[in-house]
Amino acid sequence: MTADLPARIAAGDRRALARGITLVESTLAADRVAAEDLITALLPRTGGALRVGVSGPPGVGKSTFIESFGLHLVAGGRRLAVLAVDPSSRISGGSILGDKTRMSALAQHPSAYIRPTPAGDQLGGVARHTREAILLCEAAGFDMVLVETVGVGQSETAVVDMTDFLVLLAQPGGGDDLQGIKRGIVELADLVLVTKSDGELAAAAGRAAADHQSALHLLHGPEAAPVLLVSGLTGAGIAEAAAALDALQAKAAASGRLAGKRAGQAISWLRSELVQQVVEWLAQDPALAAGLAAAERAVAAGRALPSAAARRLVREGLRMGGDSR
Amino acid sequence: MTADLPARIAAGDRRALARGITLVESTLAADRVAAEDLITALLPRTGGALRVGVSGPPGVGKSTFIESFGLHLVAGGRRLAVLAVDPSSRISGGSILGDKTRMSALAQHPSAYIRPTPAGDQLGGVARHTREAILLCEAAGFDMVLVETVGVGQSETAVVDMTDFLVLLAQPGGGDDLQGIKRGIVELADLVLVTKSDGELAAAAGRAAADHQSALHLLHGPEAAPVLLVSGLTGAGIAEAAAALDALQAKAAASGRLAGKRAGQAISWLRSELVQQVVEWLAQDPALAAGLAAAERAVAAGRALPSAAARRLVREGLRMGGDSR
Repeated sequence: MTADLPARIAAGDRRALARGITLVESTLAADRVAAEDLITALLPRTGGALRVGVSGPPGVGKSTFIESFGLHLVAGGRRLAVLAVDPSSRISGGSILGDKTRMSALAQHPSAYIRPTPAGDQLGGVARHTREAILLCEAAGFDMVLVETVGVGQSETAVVDMTDFLVLLAQPGGGDDLQGIKRGIVELADLVLVTKSDGELAAAAGRAAADHQSALHLLHGPEAAPVLLVSGLTGAGIAEAAAALDALQAKAAASGRLAGKRAGQAISWLRSELVQQVVEWLAQDPALAAGLAAAERAVAAGRALPSAAARRLVREGLRMGGDSR
Repeated sequence: MTADLPARIAAGDRRALARGITLVESTLAADRVAAEDLITALLPRTGGALRVGVSGPPGVGKSTFIESFGLHLVAGGRRLAVLAVDPSSRISGGSILGDKTRMSALAQHPSAYIRPTPAGDQLGGVARHTREAILLCEAAGFDMVLVETVGVGQSETAVVDMTDFLVLLAQPGGGDDLQGIKRGIVELADLVLVTKSDGELAAAAGRAAADHQSALHLLHGPEAAPVLLVSGLTGAGIAEAAAALDALQAKAAASGRLAGKRAGQAISWLRSELVQQVVEWLAQDPALAAGLAAAERAVAAGRALPSAAARRLVREGLRMGGDSR
């Protein structure tokens, strides 16, 4: 990296921010060290944004919502960055944020920054990149970072581990049910927004929202996530959704729960990096990489005990590390 | 271990099984190697049991249910082992399975085996021990292994990672809601049983079950977990609960989903063992252990970047491994 990159990012230079995120996404070993040095230099400027995950099944209207929601925020003087976690992009050819044309008005606004997904990444890599990109956006002065993800289950869990709150978008299906949401995901949501609450669908959306609010309340009591109606088309409910998020933040900040959550996320991130880096380090050596792959096959087939296989790998890895590095 | 321990466990000798589980629970390094050798020797005899997690909040009647359910199974010719995952046992002084007196009739039955929780363990250690104890019980010929846990959220996730199905016990609260179940846990359940469906509570239990069945169906559609009523006191619903579990197993086995789930669990176990063993290995060296603790404090306080801190730890760990081991 160039020596003035941290200062330029801190000054809000978008080209510098884009270069920083590209560095973070690089898989080259030298870039990785440079990326970590960059963020470490900017660390005192991070932590200031509200970090919000946004998820929902394909077709729910995520881009329409984010554009409408984002334009509302920037009109009120907020600065918004939008990132994406899309573990399916390699397969689907980029199902979200493949380009910025989806949210053209928001993308052109001087207070908004939209970063397309890097294609062809694994979820582990995406999670690390996105966590680091959030920090870069905070250092660049954005006060809200939306992390968008597709509704594939695993990616929501990753997003929950790196954001303060998860907003789940849902739409009424044929029978007033919230279609296409994977089992377990509704439970992760801090706020549920039923989209397309306009025109012909308005009545069905209203019924679906009421039914879900009572179902969630029955299951979770006073802790249940609120369910609101929104329309990206008419803008109905967008201000209320923003207010609901602010209320969640105010409450979590006052109780200290937000700080505790972030501290816990940082420790989990450290631990998952330890695994990731041990696995990467095993993978660097062809013999060890083959050993890891063979161990995975053996344990999956029930031919080896996972604890014993891990012990063997770690032991061989350490010997290898001592011999040759 | 003595040389004939695997053969004695395979022959169904309970004292040998108890010794094997004690070996698995030991934290001595030499015992760990012996435990892994023991299970590796028995591995071809494992995998034959239905592995079922049982959870529910304190006071829901877990022991009463397990005794009633277990006696029904053994009366039908099944062989049942009951294990426990209780990360809170150190704090609470053993809130579950502290002794066998809770399920005295089941504990005395020749086809049942109840293993008390080892006290004072961390969840990571408990998870490894329990996974290995399940394998030992299978090698000893048990065809169902119940893994009981307290309803504290984190322990259910651990149990889901090591069993085929999770049965959640719930009781009607004051207002027909299922009290005391942590948010997110209902979603993990494959079967929900509303307990104490007898006497004065029968009507409330019936309403709670119907309400929850419709709430779960609304949220999850046809994938929703069935909700049944049981009474450990009268035995009502116990046979139906056993039949529901058998139906879940038959369906998951026929679709190949059960085999896929177990293969995935084995790979996850391998990966979590890799972390656990790297962390243990870091902890062996006082300087590295202090480094890990300092890194955790620094990342929690936002003073260090987790990816960079992990890189430093792994690098230092490898150098140390090369120099001195």
